[in-house]
Amino acid sequence: MANKSHMTDYPSHLPDKAQLIEAQEQLATWVHQTPVLTSSYINELVGAQVFFKCEQLQRMGAFKMRGATKALLDLSPEQRAQGVVTHSSGNFGQAVALASKMMGVTAYVVMPDQTPQVKKAAVRGYGAQVTECVSTIEARVAMTAQIVSEKGATPLHPSNDLSVILGNATAAMEFLNQVSGLDQIVVPVGGGGLLAGTALACHYFGQECLCIGAEPEQVNDAFRSLQTGVIQHNTQTNTIADGLKTQLGDVNFPIIESLVSAIHCVDEQEIVGAMRLLYERMKLVVEPSSAVALAAVLKNHNLLKGKNIGIILSGGNVDLSALPF
Amino acid sequence: MANKSHMTDYPSHLPDKAQLIEAQEQLATWVHQTPVLTSSYINELVGAQVFFKCEQLQRMGAFKMRGATKALLDLSPEQRAQGVVTHSSGNFGQAVALASKMMGVTAYVVMPDQTPQVKKAAVRGYGAQVTECVSTIEARVAMTAQIVSEKGATPLHPSNDLSVILGNATAAMEFLNQVSGLDQIVVPVGGGGLLAGTALACHYFGQECLCIGAEPEQVNDAFRSLQTGVIQHNTQTNTIADGLKTQLGDVNFPIIESLVSAIHCVDEQEIVGAMRLLYERMKLVVEPSSAVALAAVLKNHNLLKGKNIGIILSGGNVDLSALPF
Repeated sequence: MANKSHMTDYPSHLPDKAQLIEAQEQLATWVHQTPVLTSSYINELVGAQVFFKCEQLQRMGAFKMRGATKALLDLSPEQRAQGVVTHSSGNFGQAVALASKMMGVTAYVVMPDQTPQVKKAAVRGYGAQVTECVSTIEARVAMTAQIVSEKGATPLHPSNDLSVILGNATAAMEFLNQVSGLDQIVVPVGGGGLLAGTALACHYFGQECLCIGAEPEQVNDAFRSLQTGVIQHNTQTNTIADGLKTQLGDVNFPIIESLVSAIHCVDEQEIVGAMRLLYERMKLVVEPSSAVALAAVLKNHNLLKGKNIGIILSGGNVDLSALPF
Repeated sequence: MANKSHMTDYPSHLPDKAQLIEAQEQLATWVHQTPVLTSSYINELVGAQVFFKCEQLQRMGAFKMRGATKALLDLSPEQRAQGVVTHSSGNFGQAVALASKMMGVTAYVVMPDQTPQVKKAAVRGYGAQVTECVSTIEARVAMTAQIVSEKGATPLHPSNDLSVILGNATAAMEFLNQVSGLDQIVVPVGGGGLLAGTALACHYFGQECLCIGAEPEQVNDAFRSLQTGVIQHNTQTNTIADGLKTQLGDVNFPIIESLVSAIHCVDEQEIVGAMRLLYERMKLVVEPSSAVALAAVLKNHNLLKGKNIGIILSGGNVDLSALPF
């Protein structure tokens, strides 16, 4: 693990407590307060009290709804009138589509042409306009820029955006309010938007509550970034946790570096094992990314005896015909 | 559907309100209060507000935990000291095993030798003694009688038992307390224990809240029983809803006949479609039996416009490697 025993002083230019409170007030009528569930069986396995914040039960099935909604709310009326654009084959595209639909904003979502039809259908089902492009990051960026230029739409980034981070923070704020005395909150880390938001929430609203990231070994860029102090990249993305293949950015990394205590890595077998527990024992449909946090808790159970552990289940949008069991 | 426009007068010898209140007080510390979830998507499909009472999130994954626990609590200390026995390849066996473990009671569960190993392991995992027998109802009854005779254990029936029915009733009592103004509660019907309990709860605690049963067409014995006024049997049991192959009994049928407004039947395709919605849209792992109630609501949506509909999701113990999608 990459432990940070001596945290950097919290930089004064990072978000303050009032901004988190404002985010929660803004989102109150737009997103669900998701339930917290527990499992005696998993408590026994870990030797600790483990609480699961069920963001797979959030609107459109993932915490991304929080960040996307906050980003839209932070736009000016003029910006909203011209629409928004994002490139995403995953949950953020759906979240932008649904949040835009709720607010009457035009949404453009750029998706690789190889994206499964079911995902395109979901985005279209929420009323967004899907633009297909070839499956390279360059093509996606170029197509997004073209829509910005032609339509005047505002681009929204899924994780490296302060509004998105503040929106995501409200999941942990709710969690800390629902369960008192959490010693740590563990979340999966991909692009870093959830991890940065959770770190801010733990910092301002936790009572000595650590924020821990969990990451597949196969795409351990965040682990290496925290070790080295410089944003690292992945040279391959061979993990079942398809939501975690992205990398940190210059907006969320300073927050993560200042406030995250550790990032724990887990292998693919550990991810699938944790996923199976969530389905079989907790009766929850989650995507593989959500299982990464539980896998990290199971792996490090010796360090956690008697503690109160929070896990944010990030989402439940999964291809049921391709479950790994 | 089998509609009962003129209900029989409520027989005075059936359970009274105080017995339901007592059941709820007895169970308070033993079972979870399960959450109620909703889906905007399903509300739009039905044209009504649909609330899902999540008994698949109950201890051991099914409402059966309520009835089994209540049955054990109603035994005398002498009876508890000699143990209990049931024959079940499904949720009731697991429920008796777990409830017995919690109370320090010896449990014997008779299971057909063809029962999947995973189900036997679950029952053993809760500390019960599994006795295998050949896969006929006669063999199961004989083996149960033998254990009663040899061990002095008290036999527990999964559905045709007043304590079990009263325990099951607490799910709908909770539900009516969590959601005000429910116009009807729809539950799957197999052996009739959940339907009878729900009917009692609606009668005593609902505000003109109807109780509706939902049943696979392939095993529509309860539908036919309500039509004819005589307990009917199934000549085949060819349904994916493996928890609903059983039939009504002389304890629960009088309650059902007096208090249930209708039983709606659905075909196998409708069950699988509803099951898929619960997984994909609501991110819930449920067993096929749980999808039967939603299938009935979807089928009859024209009758339900603008109403508040409650559905009890009965359980989530399913073989994930054999999902029908």
